[in-house]
Amino acid sequence: MYAYAINKDKLLERLRKVEGQVRGLQRMVGEDKYCIDILTQINSVQGALQGVALGLLDGHVRHCVRESLVEGKGDDKIAELMSSIARIAAR
Amino acid sequence: MYAYAINKDKLLERLRKVEGQVRGLQRMVGEDKYCIDILTQINSVQGALQGVALGLLDGHVRHCVRESLVEGKGDDKIAELMSSIARIAAR
Amino acid sequence: MYAYAINKDKLLERLRKVEGQVRGLQRMVGEDKYCIDILTQINSVQGALQGVALGLLDGHVRHCVRESLVEGKGDDKIAELMSSIARIAAR
Amino acid sequence: MYAYAINKDKLLERLRKVEGQVRGLQRMVGEDKYCIDILTQINSVQGALQGVALGLLDGHVRHCVRESLVEGKGDDKIAELMSSIARIAAR
Repeated sequence: MYAYAINKDKLLERLRKVEGQVRGLQRMVGEDKYCIDILTQINSVQGALQGVALGLLDGHVRHCVRESLVEGKGDDKIAELMSSIARIAAR
Repeated sequence: MYAYAINKDKLLERLRKVEGQVRGLQRMVGEDKYCIDILTQINSVQGALQGVALGLLDGHVRHCVRESLVEGKGDDKIAELMSSIARIAAR
Repeated sequence: MYAYAINKDKLLERLRKVEGQVRGLQRMVGEDKYCIDILTQINSVQGALQGVALGLLDGHVRHCVRESLVEGKGDDKIAELMSSIARIAAR
Repeated sequence: MYAYAINKDKLLERLRKVEGQVRGLQRMVGEDKYCIDILTQINSVQGALQGVALGLLDGHVRHCVRESLVEGKGDDKIAELMSSIARIAAR
């Protein structure tokens, strides 16, 4: 069981909202809505996903990474964390 | 009817795939999967959405913006386009 | 002579400011300043460069792309523009 | 003295290279080079700065954050780290 479990309900709630937004995007495309309005909506979904990612990362550092470091291990955890941050930053 | 209509089926197909990925994210959270794996998956969803956004933008420039410019109008269209690009770039 | 020439002085002024900020970063590293403060400063330089990029892009669309489109050409210009936007968006 | 001190020489070398690139950008603007080529070069500078930022962050986590966590403190360090990551991710 991982650290983000504490906010699991909130995470799931946010992801269900993202799912609803993605269905909204399909409706907008289906109804030939104006491109720029769809782009604005995609941007909002991206922001919501970024929020979920940062929330997960926060829990991960506070729990998994912390525990590994306190136990004197943690070099691999940090390498893995940095790769993940690099991918988020490249988004 | 807007320009992206040409690839409307493909856009809808991609957005349905994104919806499936978001449901996959919910499953991963529900099953307490490892944070870093969820982050990797979020990254993949964001990449897919970015692809949709760039595809829409391409159609928008090739059609809506082009027509406005050819008609000697288009200053507002360009201002609107630049705001949209700025938002995508800030993502 | 390209479109951004109109704001050439302003562009050069902004780039000289960026150069000063980068020298400031070297000073901060040389004086062992706190990592997080350096990161904040890097972020500010990146924001300034993004502003320059969006300014250039705006001039490019308003002039080079517009002219090509009005002349009935412009497909290559749009393809080139979209690649450039995709790179900015991936930043 | 902070963690990044270990790679201080390399960091300074990279920042001096960035400074040279920014002066190159000024030259390109001064010589009315093609907008898209300048944008490509800006993109390369942004990539170099992102690399410096991720390098600093890595050292920060491996040293400052690790020490704080091992000492049983570290909540503030993690909050500060997360804000910094959020800013990098928004870039």
